Amino acid sequence: MPIVTVKMAKGRPVTKKRKLAKAITDIVARELDVKPEWVTVLIEEYDRSNWATGGQLHSDKFGKGFGKKGSGK
Amino acid sequence: MPIVTVKMAKGRPVTKKRKLAKAITDIVARELDVKPEWVTVLIEEYDRSNWATGGQLHSDKFGKGFGKKGSGK
Amino acid sequence: MPIVTVKMAKGRPVTKKRKLAKAITDIVARELDVKPEWVTVLIEEYDRSNWATGGQLHSDKFGKGFGKKGSGK
Amino acid sequence: MPIVTVKMAKGRPVTKKRKLAKAITDIVARELDVKPEWVTVLIEEYDRSNWATGGQLHSDKFGKGFGKKGSGK
Amino acid sequence: MPIVTVKMAKGRPVTKKRKLAKAITDIVARELDVKPEWVTVLIEEYDRSNWATGGQLHSDKFGKGFGKKGSGK
Amino acid sequence: MPIVTVKMAKGRPVTKKRKLAKAITDIVARELDVKPEWVTVLIEEYDRSNWATGGQLHSDKFGKGFGKKGSGK
Repeated sequence: MPIVTVKMAKGRPVTKKRKLAKAITDIVARELDVKPEWVTVLIEEYDRSNWATGGQLHSDKFGKGFGKKGSGK
Repeated sequence: MPIVTVKMAKGRPVTKKRKLAKAITDIVARELDVKPEWVTVLIEEYDRSNWATGGQLHSDKFGKGFGKKGSGK
Repeated sequence: MPIVTVKMAKGRPVTKKRKLAKAITDIVARELDVKPEWVTVLIEEYDRSNWATGGQLHSDKFGKGFGKKGSGK
Repeated sequence: MPIVTVKMAKGRPVTKKRKLAKAITDIVARELDVKPEWVTVLIEEYDRSNWATGGQLHSDKFGKGFGKKGSGK
Repeated sequence: MPIVTVKMAKGRPVTKKRKLAKAITDIVARELDVKPEWVTVLIEEYDRSNWATGGQLHSDKFGKGFGKKGSGK
Repeated sequence: MPIVTVKMAKGRPVTKKRKLAKAITDIVARELDVKPEWVTVLIEEYDRSNWATGGQLHSDKFGKGFGKKGSGK
């Protein structure tokens, strides 16, 4: 009964989350040979001022967009 | 010095949390034979759109209530 | 569908864990008004050399026992 | 720079983990529009005596197998 | 590629977080002999009504300040 | 009463952990203006086969060393 947690930048729309949760569940069910209904997915969203790499807050390092273009990461 | 984390749906009133934290602390202190003041309880609340089971977001699957009747889980 | 995590010193016997998991599940089901079968309990055990308070490892600070007498915490 | 954690029963072989990590990374990169090299996957394995549902340890509830057949979950 | 998580009371200003993330990154890079850009720091803020010690919520136990003077802890 | 978790590759000696826990505690106490004895540090060690970046397990990607030279990360 796997529990998958995804930590990511705050603010993606529910349509994105819906697809993400579904896709992760399918992959985990397939790879671990468990029923999809045994899989839990938790999304944990972080403000960019609460996430740092290389000692620098992402609110300082990146803009407000998402993904490769927005580079909000 | 046990640390207990409770992940649950967002929105329960502080009166519920107060009782929950007290009850868990008592149980843990008793079962693990530690002093209650050594026990930490952290409550982590999730939006229903950040929690999925069976590949389906709880915001899609359940209503907004709590518990067995509300089935907000 | 609450998920409860208990972080504690490594080494308690399975009899202790069995009682702990049962007792926490009962409390959480009652306080949050959910069915017991919706509750997950995860026990995370730490070596004393991986847990520090006040800047001091518990392997340095405490002996190897458990609980109030053993003070292994 | 998403961080994905998978909590699951202990003991799957590294071949399974390799495929799981790759598949999750691909999905997350695609769905969140990030580069695969920004994605971290952490696998956290639990003894069945450290995981309970419905107040019952999985070491009591299930056998030692994995997945739908083994029902070690 | 260490990942450091800091759980603390909610509400400190970004100036504090910026210094904290930088200082932790420097320490971890030095002590573990890794490059600073390999270090991730995540800050997780908790409402005082979601954090209890000794069975008592911090919103009941402490005021709203921070640190030794404010004793918001 | 901040709780700091450090996720890192498994296997560093206790002398390293002792220094790490002390250094992090001092930094956190200073930056957040809390007493050192309020600070908890938890070290979580991962097998390289349980940690992946870019979809590749660290056991496949890196050797068995630590830090910048060993590049075990």
